[in-house]
Amino acid sequence: MTFRLHNFFRSSTSTRVRIALNLKGLSYGYVPYLLRKGETRTPEYLARNPQGLVPTLELEDGTSLTQSLAIIEWLDETHPAPPLLPADSLGRARVRALSFMIACEIHPLNNLRVLFRLRDQFGADEAAQKEWFTHWVNLTFDALEVELADNAPTGRFCHGEVPTLADICLYAQVWNNRRFDIPLEPWPNIKRVFAALDELPAFHDAAPPNQPDAA
Amino acid sequence: MTFRLHNFFRSSTSTRVRIALNLKGLSYGYVPYLLRKGETRTPEYLARNPQGLVPTLELEDGTSLTQSLAIIEWLDETHPAPPLLPADSLGRARVRALSFMIACEIHPLNNLRVLFRLRDQFGADEAAQKEWFTHWVNLTFDALEVELADNAPTGRFCHGEVPTLADICLYAQVWNNRRFDIPLEPWPNIKRVFAALDELPAFHDAAPPNQPDAA
Repeated sequence: MTFRLHNFFRSSTSTRVRIALNLKGLSYGYVPYLLRKGETRTPEYLARNPQGLVPTLELEDGTSLTQSLAIIEWLDETHPAPPLLPADSLGRARVRALSFMIACEIHPLNNLRVLFRLRDQFGADEAAQKEWFTHWVNLTFDALEVELADNAPTGRFCHGEVPTLADICLYAQVWNNRRFDIPLEPWPNIKRVFAALDELPAFHDAAPPNQPDAA
Repeated sequence: MTFRLHNFFRSSTSTRVRIALNLKGLSYGYVPYLLRKGETRTPEYLARNPQGLVPTLELEDGTSLTQSLAIIEWLDETHPAPPLLPADSLGRARVRALSFMIACEIHPLNNLRVLFRLRDQFGADEAAQKEWFTHWVNLTFDALEVELADNAPTGRFCHGEVPTLADICLYAQVWNNRRFDIPLEPWPNIKRVFAALDELPAFHDAAPPNQPDAA
């Protein structure tokens, strides 16, 4: 099957899907969009993705899949090896919970359209945007650090010795944090897991600076 | 198995889990928390849920599951009937994408701690908070309406003739919108699906005003 990934190098949700495709060993066509130029607001793109967001995964028959975590769950169901979720239900619940901590409690508050909205509605300058961004990262990374530090299933990665959906979300978020230069020192387990992930080509190759549209 | 649900009547993520438990026909002990009084910030609760958020589903052996969507996926895996996701992978991808539209693009921006942060960091009064809240609902409900209106799999509910995870998220979000009196008239399909869901006891009984801690 040939995939086309409609995405943007710096988008954290795009990074997640690139990692998943790499882990599954699936090649894909890279279709870049410049968000600031409104390239995801065209009638053609909105027909694929009514939210006008990246990423969209286009399947060979033209079907468009949206929302990064839904795309990754689909990839995991249709291309089971290697699995991105543990085999046991409690392990799956833990990995999904760690993933949603990032995907529901950090990323939605800190993406570009939210920062623009803070600027437009409240006049938030760069410093105020950084304060906002950092607040949400700190709040959830503090709790994530506890989950990783105190929890037996944590291994080399967030859950055991093979990368999972939680690692995908973590890796993409740490890259996102670099927008505001947030150091990882307060969270030694997060820092350790990120370093281990960065050694894996599937992750490293999906990082923002390694994409064709990274200027 | 006996469940205890640590939750709050008005919490939209709590509502989601209550609906899922009802749909599965699972009874549970209702443990209410007053968020404004910091009852989820105690050492005892933080040991269950390091994020200090509701809901937490406590299993019979004391295991705590967190993050509403991870809890619901766990319930669906361990108590498969009736299923909360379609049987086919593309259908599952669509239902999860509709769910994440709400769970990742609306709810995280509009919950209580975000409104408090807007007040504290930017001095946002009730009117400014309503403008913010409404902005994110409108943005995603407009796209959700397109997904429901133009898409063959839409039926009496978001996806076909039986309620799914997407309906759970939709129903809870519409209740959340009432905080700022957002009428559903701009979105006829969302309005229609909500009305159909509200006729089902599993949904109606999980609604905020029907909980023991609703004052």
